[in-house]
Amino acid sequence: MQRLKLTLEYDGTDFVGWARQPGLRTVEAELREALRRVFASFDELIVAGRTDAGVHALGQAVSVAVGGRGPATEHAAAALNAVLPSDVAVLSAEDVPDDFNARFSASGRSYRYRVLTARHAAPLRRARVHHYPRPLDEHDLDASAAVIVGEHDFEAFTKTKTHHDSFICTVRRATWRRTGDELIFEIDASRFLRHMIRSLVGTMLEQSPEDIRALLASGNRNDAGTTAPGRGLYLVSVAYD
Amino acid sequence: MQRLKLTLEYDGTDFVGWARQPGLRTVEAELREALRRVFASFDELIVAGRTDAGVHALGQAVSVAVGGRGPATEHAAAALNAVLPSDVAVLSAEDVPDDFNARFSASGRSYRYRVLTARHAAPLRRARVHHYPRPLDEHDLDASAAVIVGEHDFEAFTKTKTHHDSFICTVRRATWRRTGDELIFEIDASRFLRHMIRSLVGTMLEQSPEDIRALLASGNRNDAGTTAPGRGLYLVSVAYD
Repeated sequence: MQRLKLTLEYDGTDFVGWARQPGLRTVEAELREALRRVFASFDELIVAGRTDAGVHALGQAVSVAVGGRGPATEHAAAALNAVLPSDVAVLSAEDVPDDFNARFSASGRSYRYRVLTARHAAPLRRARVHHYPRPLDEHDLDASAAVIVGEHDFEAFTKTKTHHDSFICTVRRATWRRTGDELIFEIDASRFLRHMIRSLVGTMLEQSPEDIRALLASGNRNDAGTTAPGRGLYLVSVAYD
Repeated sequence: MQRLKLTLEYDGTDFVGWARQPGLRTVEAELREALRRVFASFDELIVAGRTDAGVHALGQAVSVAVGGRGPATEHAAAALNAVLPSDVAVLSAEDVPDDFNARFSASGRSYRYRVLTARHAAPLRRARVHHYPRPLDEHDLDASAAVIVGEHDFEAFTKTKTHHDSFICTVRRATWRRTGDELIFEIDASRFLRHMIRSLVGTMLEQSPEDIRALLASGNRNDAGTTAPGRGLYLVSVAYD
């Protein structure tokens, strides 16, 4: 078997998320079907970051072992794209060592969250941004982002029923920037908890930097803000040292 | 009756075009339905630029006379957006004089055409760009755009069966620019013929600046290139002096 690293872009709009669920449309199921059609066999499909319903990817990473006849690595992306639906594409395929694992070999993940601050909705971006027309203090957003950077316990910003072993994450970068009528949040971390970015964004939009600091200290999920919708979130890239 | 100028954004993907056609989904029919629900009466709905199937608008202009009870002008956009489907939005509503006509008062229109030159398709932009992964000479594209600028007979770049009175258009600006993995064509003109921009783009992608010059001289539609798909085209703005 030859191990490949695939880099994927997808539009999350019409998926219930990455992970296979019986009877529901998922990115994983579409990719498995394409691998089945292109390669004689495959095994050990691993994804770097499981995304939820509506969440997009510009650079999702997947590792997979492929065997038997099939296209050479330099033709694998084109062969897979020929059978994938139009809302998923393989941007590149590379040979990687046998011990490469898209999840455990990753040293960090970068996500982006797009907030549209215009008064009226933008039809061309309606499945791409979170429309939030209420007033925002951009200095407060910058201060909240600064509070998040570093090693913290993010229990207040994840689902209470999740089975995370630890709520400690190291956020290497967290910044807001304005581009026209959008406020864009960029965050890099070693790892993320379930719903963590959407919960952080929803809380930053509604609460003060001091509130964020208190939530990191208390870990109390009930005090955090609403979870921002999946359609504004993008997995931008996965880092491998 | 009070005359309004409405500025609209829409995603052309799920429309057969602007103009009403029985039994088919059109932007005009959706806007008329919204006007019917928001105003007691309306009349003389005029659009600046009829767009074809799949073509988007970032700043379409419409004039309409409204009467009877209805929202004040400053609340008209929000009232219409509350009943419009999510792929059409009114960005602004303004009072205009009785002799204002969105089509005949316009002094120019600006369009954009987006070409994705990446090797693989981009799912998040699949209804927003024309994917053209073949090699392109960007100097030739610039030279072709320069040939188009000025007053010319564009008969070679429109449908042969259209009933235009004249094929003369004055192109004030035509430029290509690269933004990441896209080549973006911007064109401003006094008026455009049916399919003119898509035909110009399709021909520029496939033929030389000398070919474009010969087509402007000959007016022979059969020598022009294929019409580029509607999904890459945007009506950006309409100018009123």
